[in-house]
Amino acid sequence: MVERGGDEARSVGRTTHPLGGAATTVGITGSPGSGKSTLTNALLAEMRRDGQRVGVLAIDPTSPFTGGAILGDRVRMGDHALDEGVFIRSMATRGHLGGLALATPEAVRVLDAVGVPWIIIETVGVGQVEVEIAGEADTTVVVVNPGWGDAVQANKAGLMEIADLFVINKADRPGVDDTRRDIEQMLELSARRDWEPPIIATVATTGEGVRDLWSALEGHRTWLAGSGELERRRFRRATDELVRILSARLTERVTELGEGDAFEQSRDAVLERRVDPWTAADALISATG
Amino acid sequence: MVERGGDEARSVGRTTHPLGGAATTVGITGSPGSGKSTLTNALLAEMRRDGQRVGVLAIDPTSPFTGGAILGDRVRMGDHALDEGVFIRSMATRGHLGGLALATPEAVRVLDAVGVPWIIIETVGVGQVEVEIAGEADTTVVVVNPGWGDAVQANKAGLMEIADLFVINKADRPGVDDTRRDIEQMLELSARRDWEPPIIATVATTGEGVRDLWSALEGHRTWLAGSGELERRRFRRATDELVRILSARLTERVTELGEGDAFEQSRDAVLERRVDPWTAADALISATG
Repeated sequence: MVERGGDEARSVGRTTHPLGGAATTVGITGSPGSGKSTLTNALLAEMRRDGQRVGVLAIDPTSPFTGGAILGDRVRMGDHALDEGVFIRSMATRGHLGGLALATPEAVRVLDAVGVPWIIIETVGVGQVEVEIAGEADTTVVVVNPGWGDAVQANKAGLMEIADLFVINKADRPGVDDTRRDIEQMLELSARRDWEPPIIATVATTGEGVRDLWSALEGHRTWLAGSGELERRRFRRATDELVRILSARLTERVTELGEGDAFEQSRDAVLERRVDPWTAADALISATG
Repeated sequence: MVERGGDEARSVGRTTHPLGGAATTVGITGSPGSGKSTLTNALLAEMRRDGQRVGVLAIDPTSPFTGGAILGDRVRMGDHALDEGVFIRSMATRGHLGGLALATPEAVRVLDAVGVPWIIIETVGVGQVEVEIAGEADTTVVVVNPGWGDAVQANKAGLMEIADLFVINKADRPGVDDTRRDIEQMLELSARRDWEPPIIATVATTGEGVRDLWSALEGHRTWLAGSGELERRRFRRATDELVRILSARLTERVTELGEGDAFEQSRDAVLERRVDPWTAADALISATG
């Protein structure tokens, strides 16, 4: 219902929003092939070992399907497919990109309302939308691989500024130290706040280093709550979401206005030069309340 | 005033719209360096020889300046700089692209209202905005150069579908026949209506072929009026412009709504989970009429 959008989704939002606020959201982003899904799978194992319930939303704006992608993710994160404490959902665009930016916080709200304490938002690519969605989480994890230039590419994609934690995944490959140095250098150049992002080396396929990631996530959550940064982020997020919803609502208005009889009459009046288009537009807007 | 936008521009629109409707607009587009300005300059000479007053709007979304570009155009079209029967104006973006798409029809309206019978809209590049603006004219001229692949590039940029007339400029260079054949082949593949776009070879620097272009423009105008296509195009254009203005007006609304006290109160209510963001957004919209 949330993915479909519309009035049904809004009634879900109305029901779930008052019940939420306790969940921590973790955005996981990084270039395709960096092993985000495998890392999420390994992270789930650590979280489950500590008895934490987890929700995973896999965001793929490039895929035109929603339902169809579920199976794929169940396979990728197959270790947890039958685990009742894990909820996995792939979310793809349903025609328009804006929809995903609106649907993701709505899906978070549902998981939050039913008491899931950790919600992972994994994005498939590093497009603008994915970075934006991942950056909207309480904690943002940026995944890179060892090797020349990967961290530089991540920097170009705007990931350095949003990262709270770095993971160098596939750390059994050569170049881990170089990549760590690249990240450290870029962090020095950027205007950091009082949080120093940890850089964690992992081999997601074997689970190596993933326990450290899980500890770092808990550490960041503690810092967020204690420093007041959690409140600041949620304030900014509420502002952004409200503006986005206002914009979506008013865009719907344009579509509605463009389809009605009143629109046709206004357009004819403009064509016959009885009224200019600005006056006609304002009259249309005020006539429909 | 029109370029600055805002209430002043709208009052200009209110005054000028009822007085217009007689002008023919000609969009001239094509890749940078194809010689559009020189061609426009040569075309102006032909039109002036027949005693026609002409307005030229040179659209450059990439330039951050407006006023500053005038001198450049006066130089490029220097033959007509002191001619009272020619009005030349460069229009550049003032920060946002949408502004140019709104300001161009407004500027056309002003020239139309004061009785200028021919208005040329020359675009500098072949970006989406330029193609859109040029394609909004009564007649769209696409300029290519002789040589391998230029027509193919124009096709890729979406110019084939909007072209009513083709000009192969710099026709003193080799490859004119090949380019003509390329265009003819692409026209055969595309679903054309009852107008067969003429292909005119010109050498803008010497004026060769430009008289043919001017005749072809007049021919297309006659066809537009006689076939009912002019009415259809103006109908579609009025629809598009009204939707664009509605959208701009409602976007202004979002900005206004996002700045007020009511917004802050709503955001706080959302943060404190007293209300969900959808309900808050709708309340904000209806509260401000």
